[in-house]
Amino acid sequence: MADYLDAVKWNADGLVPAIAQDAQSGEVLMLAWMNREALAQTLATGQATYWSRSRASLWRKGETSGHTQRVLEVRLDCDADAVLLQVDQAGGIACHTGRRRCFFNLLDTASAAPRWEATDAVLTEPGKFRDGG
Amino acid sequence: MADYLDAVKWNADGLVPAIAQDAQSGEVLMLAWMNREALAQTLATGQATYWSRSRASLWRKGETSGHTQRVLEVRLDCDADAVLLQVDQAGGIACHTGRRRCFFNLLDTASAAPRWEATDAVLTEPGKFRDGG
Repeated sequence: MADYLDAVKWNADGLVPAIAQDAQSGEVLMLAWMNREALAQTLATGQATYWSRSRASLWRKGETSGHTQRVLEVRLDCDADAVLLQVDQAGGIACHTGRRRCFFNLLDTASAAPRWEATDAVLTEPGKFRDGG
Repeated sequence: MADYLDAVKWNADGLVPAIAQDAQSGEVLMLAWMNREALAQTLATGQATYWSRSRASLWRKGETSGHTQRVLEVRLDCDADAVLLQVDQAGGIACHTGRRRCFFNLLDTASAAPRWEATDAVLTEPGKFRDGG
Protein backbone atom coordinates (compact mmCIF):
# COMPACT_ATOMS: atom_id res chain seq x y z
CA MET A 1 0.00 0.00 0.00
CA ALA A 2 0.93 3.68 -0.41
CA ASP A 3 3.33 2.77 -3.19
CA TYR A 4 2.82 6.11 -4.84
CA LEU A 5 4.16 7.75 -1.68
CA ASP A 6 7.17 5.45 -1.59
CA ALA A 7 8.00 6.42 -5.18
CA VAL A 8 8.60 10.02 -4.13
CA LYS A 9 12.17 10.96 -3.19
CA TRP A 10 11.54 12.89 0.00
CA ASN A 11 14.46 15.06 1.06
CA ALA A 12 16.36 14.78 4.36
CA ASP A 13 13.50 16.63 6.06
CA GLY A 14 10.92 14.32 4.51
CA LEU A 15 9.70 17.00 2.09
CA VAL A 16 9.36 17.70 -1.62
CA PRO A 17 8.71 21.05 -3.29
CA ALA A 18 5.21 21.28 -4.77
CA ILE A 19 4.32 23.77 -7.49
CA ALA A 20 0.70 24.91 -7.78
CA GLN A 21 -0.33 25.97 -11.27
CA ASP A 22 -3.69 27.52 -12.13
CA ALA A 23 -5.40 24.92 -14.30
CA GLN A 24 -7.25 27.53 -16.33
CA SER A 25 -4.75 30.35 -16.85
CA GLY A 26 -1.59 28.25 -16.63
CA GLU A 27 -0.14 30.78 -14.23
CA VAL A 28 2.31 29.39 -11.67
CA LEU A 29 0.72 30.45 -8.40
CA MET A 30 3.14 29.32 -5.70
CA LEU A 31 5.72 26.86 -4.52
CA ALA A 32 5.19 25.15 -1.18
CA TRP A 33 6.35 21.94 0.46
CA MET A 34 4.72 18.59 1.09
CA ASN A 35 5.50 15.67 3.35
CA ARG A 36 3.94 12.23 2.97
CA GLU A 37 0.93 13.15 5.04
CA ALA A 38 0.34 16.34 3.07
CA LEU A 39 0.34 14.50 -0.24
CA ALA A 40 -1.86 11.72 1.15
CA GLN A 41 -4.34 14.27 2.51
CA THR A 42 -4.30 16.19 -0.77
CA LEU A 43 -5.32 13.00 -2.50
CA ALA A 44 -7.90 12.00 0.09
CA THR A 45 -9.60 15.40 0.19
CA GLY A 46 -8.98 16.78 -3.29
CA GLN A 47 -7.80 19.99 -1.62
CA ALA A 48 -4.16 21.10 -1.71
CA THR A 49 -2.52 20.42 1.63
CA TYR A 50 1.07 21.40 2.31
CA TRP A 51 3.57 21.22 5.12
CA SER A 52 4.27 24.59 6.66
CA ARG A 53 7.96 24.70 7.46
CA SER A 54 7.60 27.90 9.50
CA ARG A 55 4.80 26.48 11.63
CA ALA A 56 5.94 22.86 11.44
CA SER A 57 2.42 21.66 10.81
CA LEU A 58 0.12 20.44 8.07
CA TRP A 59 -1.50 23.33 6.31
CA ARG A 60 -4.63 22.92 4.26
CA LYS A 61 -4.26 25.81 1.85
CA GLY A 62 -6.99 28.38 2.47
CA GLU A 63 -8.10 26.93 5.79
CA THR A 64 -8.19 30.41 7.32
CA SER A 65 -8.34 32.66 4.25
CA GLY A 66 -10.88 30.67 2.28
CA HIS A 67 -8.50 30.65 -0.69
CA THR A 68 -8.54 26.90 -1.06
CA GLN A 69 -7.12 24.99 -4.01
CA ARG A 70 -9.12 22.18 -5.58
CA VAL A 71 -6.61 19.78 -7.07
CA LEU A 72 -7.36 18.54 -10.57
CA GLU A 73 -4.09 16.78 -11.31
CA VAL A 74 -0.91 15.71 -9.52
CA ARG A 75 2.37 15.12 -11.35
CA LEU A 76 5.84 13.96 -10.31
CA ASP A 77 9.04 14.83 -12.16
CA CYS A 78 11.67 12.59 -13.72
CA ASP A 79 13.80 12.50 -10.58
CA ALA A 80 10.72 11.99 -8.37
CA ASP A 81 11.75 14.92 -6.19
CA ALA A 82 9.30 17.62 -7.27
CA VAL A 83 5.51 17.70 -7.55
CA LEU A 84 3.28 19.75 -9.84
CA LEU A 85 -0.39 20.39 -9.05
CA GLN A 86 -3.04 21.71 -11.40
CA VAL A 87 -5.46 23.60 -9.21
CA ASP A 88 -8.69 25.51 -9.27
CA GLN A 89 -7.80 28.49 -7.07
CA ALA A 90 -10.74 29.72 -4.99
CA GLY A 91 -11.16 33.48 -5.17
CA GLY A 92 -8.35 33.74 -7.71
CA ILE A 93 -5.95 34.63 -4.90
CA ALA A 94 -3.14 32.27 -3.95
CA CYS A 95 -0.78 34.57 -2.07
CA HIS A 96 -1.05 35.54 1.59
CA THR A 97 -0.20 39.11 0.53
CA GLY A 98 -3.58 39.23 -1.23
CA ARG A 99 -2.16 38.84 -4.70
CA ARG A 100 -3.16 36.41 -7.42
CA ARG A 101 0.11 34.55 -7.20
CA CYS A 102 3.19 34.50 -5.00
CA PHE A 103 5.60 35.19 -7.88
CA PHE A 104 4.83 38.90 -8.07
CA ASN A 105 8.45 40.12 -7.91
CA LEU A 106 9.86 40.64 -11.39
CA LEU A 107 13.58 41.07 -11.86
CA ASP A 108 14.04 44.39 -13.60
CA THR A 109 17.19 44.12 -15.65
CA ALA A 110 16.83 47.38 -17.54
CA SER A 111 19.20 49.30 -15.31
CA ALA A 112 22.81 48.58 -14.37
CA ALA A 113 21.75 47.34 -10.95
CA PRO A 114 19.01 44.71 -11.38
CA ARG A 115 16.25 44.83 -8.79
CA TRP A 116 13.02 43.06 -7.90
CA GLU A 117 9.85 45.01 -8.66
CA ALA A 118 6.40 44.02 -7.42
CA THR A 119 4.21 43.86 -10.53
CA ASP A 120 0.89 42.48 -9.33
CA ALA A 121 -1.97 44.30 -7.67
CA VAL A 122 -3.12 43.46 -4.16
CA LEU A 123 -6.66 42.18 -4.64
CA THR A 124 -7.64 41.73 -1.01
CA GLU A 125 -6.46 43.08 2.31
CA PRO A 126 -2.98 41.65 2.85
CA GLY A 127 -2.11 40.05 6.16
CA LYS A 128 -5.75 39.82 7.12
CA PHE A 129 -5.38 36.10 7.34
CA ARG A 130 -2.29 34.11 7.99
CA ASP A 131 -2.01 31.63 5.18
CA GLY A 132 1.68 31.48 4.45
CA GLY A 133 4.02 28.60 4.90
CA MET B 1 26.09 45.83 -5.76
CA ALA B 2 24.38 42.45 -6.24
CA ASP B 3 21.49 43.58 -4.08
CA TYR B 4 19.09 41.44 -6.04
CA LEU B 5 21.11 38.41 -4.99
CA ASP B 6 21.08 39.47 -1.34
CA ALA B 7 17.29 39.74 -1.48
CA VAL B 8 16.98 36.01 -2.14
CA LYS B 9 16.58 33.75 0.89
CA TRP B 10 19.07 31.03 0.03
CA ASN B 11 18.60 27.84 2.03
CA ALA B 12 21.18 26.26 4.34
CA ASP B 13 22.94 24.86 1.26
CA GLY B 14 22.91 28.27 -0.45
CA LEU B 15 20.24 27.21 -2.91
CA VAL B 16 16.71 28.11 -4.02
CA PRO B 17 14.35 26.03 -6.13
CA ALA B 18 13.89 27.46 -9.63
CA ILE B 19 10.88 26.59 -11.79
CA ALA B 20 11.25 26.81 -15.57
CA GLN B 21 8.02 27.52 -17.42
CA ASP B 22 7.68 27.52 -21.20
CA ALA B 23 6.94 31.14 -22.09
CA GLN B 24 4.80 30.18 -25.06
CA SER B 25 2.79 27.16 -23.93
CA GLY B 26 2.77 27.96 -20.21
CA GLU B 27 3.80 24.39 -19.49
CA VAL B 28 5.89 23.88 -16.37
CA LEU B 29 8.99 22.21 -17.75
CA MET B 30 11.15 21.42 -14.72
CA LEU B 31 12.27 22.34 -11.26
CA ALA B 32 15.99 22.72 -10.63
CA TRP B 33 18.15 24.54 -8.09
CA MET B 34 20.19 27.73 -8.22
CA ASN B 35 22.91 29.17 -6.07
CA ARG B 36 24.05 32.80 -6.22
CA GLU B 37 26.47 32.13 -9.03
CA ALA B 38 23.86 30.26 -11.07
CA LEU B 39 21.41 33.13 -10.84
CA ALA B 40 24.11 35.69 -11.59
CA GLN B 41 25.25 33.71 -14.63
CA THR B 42 21.67 33.27 -15.80
CA LEU B 43 21.33 37.03 -15.76
CA ALA B 44 24.69 37.69 -17.36
CA THR B 45 24.23 35.20 -20.20
CA GLY B 46 20.45 35.14 -20.66
CA GLN B 47 20.67 31.34 -20.57
CA ALA B 48 19.28 29.30 -17.68
CA THR B 49 22.08 28.12 -15.44
CA TYR B 50 21.43 25.90 -12.45
CA TRP B 51 23.36 24.23 -9.67
CA SER B 52 23.56 20.50 -10.11
CA ARG B 53 23.28 18.97 -6.66
CA SER B 54 24.25 15.52 -7.93
CA ARG B 55 27.39 16.80 -9.64
CA ALA B 56 28.01 19.68 -7.22
CA SER B 57 28.74 22.04 -10.08
CA LEU B 58 27.24 24.85 -12.12
CA TRP B 59 25.19 23.49 -14.95
CA ARG B 60 24.29 25.59 -17.95
CA LYS B 61 21.12 23.86 -19.07
CA GLY B 62 21.64 22.23 -22.44
CA GLU B 63 25.41 22.57 -22.42
CA THR B 64 25.77 18.98 -23.61
CA SER B 65 22.33 18.22 -25.06
CA GLY B 66 21.82 21.48 -26.91
CA HIS B 67 18.47 21.90 -25.15
CA THR B 68 19.28 25.33 -23.80
CA GLN B 69 16.79 27.70 -22.21
CA ARG B 70 16.76 31.35 -23.19
CA VAL B 71 15.44 33.25 -20.19
CA LEU B 72 12.82 35.89 -20.90
CA GLU B 73 11.80 36.70 -17.36
CA VAL B 74 12.89 35.99 -13.79
CA ARG B 75 10.52 36.21 -10.83
CA LEU B 76 10.88 35.77 -7.07
CA ASP B 77 8.06 34.75 -4.75
CA CYS B 78 6.60 36.50 -1.71
CA ASP B 79 8.92 34.71 0.71
CA ALA B 80 11.93 35.25 -1.57
CA ASP B 81 12.75 31.57 -1.44
CA ALA B 82 11.61 30.36 -4.87
CA VAL B 83 12.36 31.54 -8.40
CA LEU B 84 10.24 31.32 -11.55
CA LEU B 85 11.77 31.56 -15.02
CA GLN B 86 9.94 32.13 -18.28
CA VAL B 87 12.02 30.37 -20.91
CA ASP B 88 12.26 29.71 -24.58
CA GLN B 89 13.12 25.99 -24.60
CA ALA B 90 15.45 25.02 -27.44
CA GLY B 91 14.24 21.95 -29.28
CA GLY B 92 11.09 21.83 -27.20
CA ILE B 93 12.73 19.25 -24.93
CA ALA B 94 13.54 20.09 -21.32
CA CYS B 95 13.93 16.65 -19.78
CA HIS B 96 17.06 14.49 -19.88
CA THR B 97 14.76 11.52 -20.62
CA GLY B 98 14.04 13.10 -24.00
CA ARG B 99 10.61 14.34 -23.05
CA ARG B 100 9.12 17.80 -23.44
CA ARG B 101 9.01 18.35 -19.70
CA CYS B 102 10.20 16.63 -16.56
CA PHE B 103 6.70 16.37 -15.04
CA PHE B 104 5.62 13.44 -17.18
CA ASN B 105 4.41 11.23 -14.32
CA LEU B 106 0.70 11.66 -13.73
CA LEU B 107 -0.87 10.33 -10.55
CA ASP B 108 -3.61 7.95 -11.67
CA THR B 109 -6.25 8.00 -8.97
CA ALA B 110 -8.86 5.98 -10.83
CA SER B 111 -8.06 2.75 -9.07
CA ALA B 112 -7.96 1.93 -5.36
CA ALA B 113 -4.17 2.03 -5.37
CA PRO B 114 -3.01 5.32 -6.93
CA ARG B 115 0.07 5.08 -9.11
CA TRP B 116 2.30 7.27 -11.27
CA GLU B 117 1.85 6.81 -15.01
CA ALA B 118 4.23 8.25 -17.61
CA THR B 119 2.03 10.25 -19.98
CA ASP B 120 4.45 12.00 -22.32
CA ALA B 121 6.19 10.65 -25.39
CA VAL B 122 9.96 10.39 -25.61
CA LEU B 123 10.88 12.77 -28.42
CA THR B 124 14.59 12.09 -28.63
CA GLU B 125 16.90 9.29 -27.59
CA PRO B 126 16.92 9.26 -23.79
CA GLY B 127 20.20 9.13 -21.93
CA LYS B 128 22.13 10.08 -25.04
CA PHE B 129 23.35 13.13 -23.27
CA ARG B 130 23.67 13.69 -19.57
CA ASP B 131 21.80 16.84 -18.78
CA GLY B 132 20.15 16.15 -15.48
CA GLY B 133 20.81 17.76 -12.17
